[in-house]
Amino acid sequence: MEHNNHSSRRKFIQQSAVVGAGLVLGNPLQVLSQVNKQKIMASNIKSKGFAGKDEHGKLTSWTFERRPVGDSDILIEIKYSGICHSDIHTIKGHWGKQVYPQVPGHEIAGIVTAVGKNVTKFKVGEKAGVGCMVNSCMQCKSCKNGEEHHCETTGMVGTYGTPEKSSPTGITQGGYANNIVVTEHFAIKIPTNIDLQYAAPLLCAGITTYSPMMQYKMKKGDKVGVVGIGGLGHMAIKIAVSKGAEVYAFTTSASKTDDIKSFGAKEAIVVNSGEDLKPWRGKLDYMISTVPYAYEMSPYIDCVKPYGYFTQVGQPINGALPINNFNMIFNRVNFNGSLIGGIPETQEVMDYCAENKIYPQVQLIKADEINDAWDKIVDKRARYRYVIDASTF
Amino acid sequence: MEHNNHSSRRKFIQQSAVVGAGLVLGNPLQVLSQVNKQKIMASNIKSKGFAGKDEHGKLTSWTFERRPVGDSDILIEIKYSGICHSDIHTIKGHWGKQVYPQVPGHEIAGIVTAVGKNVTKFKVGEKAGVGCMVNSCMQCKSCKNGEEHHCETTGMVGTYGTPEKSSPTGITQGGYANNIVVTEHFAIKIPTNIDLQYAAPLLCAGITTYSPMMQYKMKKGDKVGVVGIGGLGHMAIKIAVSKGAEVYAFTTSASKTDDIKSFGAKEAIVVNSGEDLKPWRGKLDYMISTVPYAYEMSPYIDCVKPYGYFTQVGQPINGALPINNFNMIFNRVNFNGSLIGGIPETQEVMDYCAENKIYPQVQLIKADEINDAWDKIVDKRARYRYVIDASTF
Repeated sequence: MEHNNHSSRRKFIQQSAVVGAGLVLGNPLQVLSQVNKQKIMASNIKSKGFAGKDEHGKLTSWTFERRPVGDSDILIEIKYSGICHSDIHTIKGHWGKQVYPQVPGHEIAGIVTAVGKNVTKFKVGEKAGVGCMVNSCMQCKSCKNGEEHHCETTGMVGTYGTPEKSSPTGITQGGYANNIVVTEHFAIKIPTNIDLQYAAPLLCAGITTYSPMMQYKMKKGDKVGVVGIGGLGHMAIKIAVSKGAEVYAFTTSASKTDDIKSFGAKEAIVVNSGEDLKPWRGKLDYMISTVPYAYEMSPYIDCVKPYGYFTQVGQPINGALPINNFNMIFNRVNFNGSLIGGIPETQEVMDYCAENKIYPQVQLIKADEINDAWDKIVDKRARYRYVIDASTF
Repeated sequence: MEHNNHSSRRKFIQQSAVVGAGLVLGNPLQVLSQVNKQKIMASNIKSKGFAGKDEHGKLTSWTFERRPVGDSDILIEIKYSGICHSDIHTIKGHWGKQVYPQVPGHEIAGIVTAVGKNVTKFKVGEKAGVGCMVNSCMQCKSCKNGEEHHCETTGMVGTYGTPEKSSPTGITQGGYANNIVVTEHFAIKIPTNIDLQYAAPLLCAGITTYSPMMQYKMKKGDKVGVVGIGGLGHMAIKIAVSKGAEVYAFTTSASKTDDIKSFGAKEAIVVNSGEDLKPWRGKLDYMISTVPYAYEMSPYIDCVKPYGYFTQVGQPINGALPINNFNMIFNRVNFNGSLIGGIPETQEVMDYCAENKIYPQVQLIKADEINDAWDKIVDKRARYRYVIDASTF
């Protein structure tokens, strides 16, 4: 399904007018004369994608510019871009006021087509990915510890929608597009043995579920519950199963039962009301919820054993969730949230999934199907990750 | 301040018409003939206290009966009874529909005036206390582990308001009264070297704050935050200080600052808005909140270091609390709730406080001042625990 051949890459580079000081391009014919360098360093990269124009959240085609490829940057020709529920929440303003036009997308997989002169991690022609962040201060303790998403000074720079001076549009623009420029540190190496369409969703759905499960130190035989079986949830099942956990998947969609079993879950529990959860009270060692809307969490949290942990990774509108402390004082469960993961851990989940052949279940779509896909995601009809074929932008 | 003399005890016993098979009374003249035993075993204990009659929550004098003293029961002549915010919430129906009349009170300290024939833990004349529960199944794993408050079969039987067959009124009746009958297992031994007025609040305010801090394994030098400095909060400060913690107390009442320092806190932080909490972000090892109403928890939770713990012991109306998952995914704090403590741990805190002279700051009141005290508690005017002199019932 990939279009990673030399001619398309060259064509892309030409279209993108990629040039820069010491920039190493994919084609030796394009090595630039010293004379042109200064002019070229200042040249923006042309990009074409789909952007939200306002809070109504209908995406339309948009041509825009990215910053020139700097000395530590790489240019990626995007091949596939996953759709995350976060894209919908962000563009619709559910998490705060936005700047438009804005190109969402933070599950980006493609091919490196140019590298700055200081780049050591990538070579032109290699597979590369970008997840949920594209920069941070790199000086603070968190950044130095590989927890760039918890940068203590500037905070992480999100892949889209974050104000950024170097961006010609004033904000970062994401992966629903045909290319992206990113500091090499924030790009993930994608092993040769995993298809880019499968690699893309690992960069958010994969790391977001992997990170808290590793933090919890999930071990073989643990009874792990997963709440909400969509893009993130189905990855949580697959990763937990691969680690030897007994996985119990909680869904409101009875139609997902067979799929859930095929992902390796021991049991699929269809939840119509809190009553359906009562048999599970205090039975699970750990639980992760991917539900991206406010919901009655407490009967789910009750399913965890006393002193166990429940992690909420789904982010509801404005972050607001109700919790009932009557449940909490009796269930004695530790509730926490988890963002994504740092760059080293994102690389780790990428390598782990490639090595163990843990692939998301993807549905490839074209750019003009994005709006329809968004509606289906909100309606719980995604099975399980929509991935955009970036050649259709 | 105590009225523990022989004559008043005898008078009390006579008034109470305490009799029972094999019952050992405080006065040898009252040892019963074999003939009278059967009749006596069935006799209820007369009790006088203050009860809520409806959800309006105004307490009035009420005479009622308690069950006869069984073979494993003790009868306690109550000397002091602490007022907990839970009493107010319960009687006003904030935590669910109630049966009335209902006598609240679960910080009970007094003198044993009669013991059943199987009683081994207490002798007549000894100090004894009752906290928040008076029974449980005693068969399940939790009960056997000394976590009777987490009884897995019947659930704990609360000191007031819980349906109970043996109670003449159909529900348990609490400590705003002149006596109580309780299974010896659920009574706490009060050391001779602590005044009963100080012992009473340890049975809820003490154990409720002590238990989660022990669960957290608070250690010397830990930076511990306490939110809400009332009956529970001021005990949390004193206990944490005694364990060598550096305590930071968060209050909305500037007038409490000097008191807070006198309790041993390193700093009193007066919070008018979330802004006042920003300097404390990620600074504390552990935090406990006693706030008994819904409040914006997230800026407080943010004060705990990543992967630290925040325990909510205050119980809001219907248990409902708002939590913001945007905060949680960044602060990485574990939020949990904590109920009270088991009987062994309640004994532990009692012994610990007696030995280390950790006394609550009490304001003694008469029975007819209860309603005024309740209003003051709701208005944050308590300094810091109202304790009723039970001789005034």
